[in-house]
Amino acid sequence: MALTVVCAPDSFKESLTAREAGEAMARGVTRVVPGAAVSVVPMADGGEGTVHAVCDALGGELIETDVTGPLGSRVRAHYARAGELAVIESAQACGLDLIDPADRDAMVATTRGVGEIIAHAIDGGAKRILIGLGGSATTDGGAGLLQGLGARITTRDGSPIGPGGVGLRDVAAVELPDLGDVTLRVACDVDNPLTGEHGAAAVFGPQKGATPEQVAELDELLADFAALIDDACPTTPGAGAAGGMGFALLALGASLEPGVEIIAEAVHLLEKFSGADLVITGEGRIDAQTLHGKTPAGVAKVARAAGAAVLVCAGDVCDEDALAELFDGIIPITSRPCTTEEAMAAAADNLEAAVARAMRLIQLTL
Amino acid sequence: MALTVVCAPDSFKESLTAREAGEAMARGVTRVVPGAAVSVVPMADGGEGTVHAVCDALGGELIETDVTGPLGSRVRAHYARAGELAVIESAQACGLDLIDPADRDAMVATTRGVGEIIAHAIDGGAKRILIGLGGSATTDGGAGLLQGLGARITTRDGSPIGPGGVGLRDVAAVELPDLGDVTLRVACDVDNPLTGEHGAAAVFGPQKGATPEQVAELDELLADFAALIDDACPTTPGAGAAGGMGFALLALGASLEPGVEIIAEAVHLLEKFSGADLVITGEGRIDAQTLHGKTPAGVAKVARAAGAAVLVCAGDVCDEDALAELFDGIIPITSRPCTTEEAMAAAADNLEAAVARAMRLIQLTL
Repeated sequence: MALTVVCAPDSFKESLTAREAGEAMARGVTRVVPGAAVSVVPMADGGEGTVHAVCDALGGELIETDVTGPLGSRVRAHYARAGELAVIESAQACGLDLIDPADRDAMVATTRGVGEIIAHAIDGGAKRILIGLGGSATTDGGAGLLQGLGARITTRDGSPIGPGGVGLRDVAAVELPDLGDVTLRVACDVDNPLTGEHGAAAVFGPQKGATPEQVAELDELLADFAALIDDACPTTPGAGAAGGMGFALLALGASLEPGVEIIAEAVHLLEKFSGADLVITGEGRIDAQTLHGKTPAGVAKVARAAGAAVLVCAGDVCDEDALAELFDGIIPITSRPCTTEEAMAAAADNLEAAVARAMRLIQLTL
Repeated sequence: MALTVVCAPDSFKESLTAREAGEAMARGVTRVVPGAAVSVVPMADGGEGTVHAVCDALGGELIETDVTGPLGSRVRAHYARAGELAVIESAQACGLDLIDPADRDAMVATTRGVGEIIAHAIDGGAKRILIGLGGSATTDGGAGLLQGLGARITTRDGSPIGPGGVGLRDVAAVELPDLGDVTLRVACDVDNPLTGEHGAAAVFGPQKGATPEQVAELDELLADFAALIDDACPTTPGAGAAGGMGFALLALGASLEPGVEIIAEAVHLLEKFSGADLVITGEGRIDAQTLHGKTPAGVAKVARAAGAAVLVCAGDVCDEDALAELFDGIIPITSRPCTTEEAMAAAADNLEAAVARAMRLIQLTL
């Protein structure tokens, strides 16, 4: 029977989309085993590239909408729709990458656009919404997100609070929106609580530009904000993700889950691996951290469950002994000394060549 | 039965001796297949490292002797002795690497020290002498080598000529030495004739510091010198090797042969590969040129003859498609972007890890 191979990589950051990486891997397999049945399932873990990967894997529709950006001006965001499922990357509306480093302002950055994307998806008929967190410029406790979804978050005089952490200075009352039968699942790979020394402000504030004084104020503002929402639990692991956006989503009844597991389920990965002899996954860089919920680790677990062997490719391989516990084979894709820039420019060719090289070894019978 | 593996690499230039490379490979194999029967045979092709590799492979003796260097001052040279066999690298007595680039002088550099090493070996009882050419600083037609072996090469007034190409200006008569029953085999991987546009002066003179005028004069001097030696054939392929040292050795009855084949025979490579399932070879850099007589190619041919599969490792892999014709597997040893210096500094660890990685793939059954 023909060798059955599924290529299910994450994107290779700044060089290949998950689809491009998967296609390169597939070419590498076919070069050595022309008769192999090879398919590509772009994968992601909720981070950058998740919308495109899921859209591609499910044959969904990519929807474009202009929403409020982190500092107030409009930004263009994309999300994926496939049937009643919508997949959103919060960073497309409130990401740190959307802001010039010189303009970063942890006090005013808002998550409102994320709420607007979710609202857009619900208006379009979405019932199940997956939201990838991470990379946010914000520390607003998700207040903006809630407002974008129609929440009334008001000052003492009943007017809506302003954007960002500073907006929380004036908050007096919170009325959450009713999302009806819509379910929210959140890809979240951190377990920080909303406040305190491991909280959103203390841990992530500085990289968003917050001074120590601002971190202290934001931490207090987040605590005060949380106290206004009945039943909300600011100590739930992940509440502090994305500047407290995790908290707001929890308050809406969302579940916070490891990203790659949600995405694997969304794209029916186990089903797609059914009958496969070999799964090839990968990411730009792999190291011991990869084992903690990154795409290749999640893919490997599903591959194991499907009874397939699993290889992992990467442009940069560290901590190989730890990785060898989970993967049947590790494939660095460089074939000579080179700069990171050179490696990224040649990533598709390198990946194809490396997979072909690995397939030749696998085919070798001693 | 235990997997039988022979590691037979060349040295990895400027980072690992052939022995060190072979040991690193062996560790990589054993890490994955603890029960494997692994042996190491350091290999070479007549270039740098040949003396040490053969000495090691045969359990020979490394002999040290001070001889005339390329510019006249004494240099310390090593050659290998194993029974009646001696193995010499000519570059240890007349190599370009022995001279500071600013001091290069194609007109005066002499091969005398090579003759002195050969004489030393013969005095010590050697009957079979292997000589690796290449890397020489000289263009003396091997006149110095002949003198070092006792040849009378004289001017009109009967006094010995001086060193280097300039010494040939005054040559009037040549009387070759009698080496008795000593046989000379020369590892030579170029097929240049002594003179003419593909000759020693024209092709190799410039890299030894010769000006166009000096190239022209040296070419004439070599032709005149050759005309003084009965039966010598300056057009034999390889006569122009090492500034005409090939010619002088041919005049002494030596055979010029592909280096790796001579060395493979000397170390009984076919015998050492007998019963092996897998041979692992390698060199610092491999590319299409590797197929033209470099160590990994020669090792691969012997491995094939022994019925073993063959893998090749390298720090720098180019022209992979061409290499795939000869090798069952190609193993680049880098696992991330890095500089050449970093790659060389980590060569032993990288090589071990890469071989382990390859063995895991080979062991994988789909």
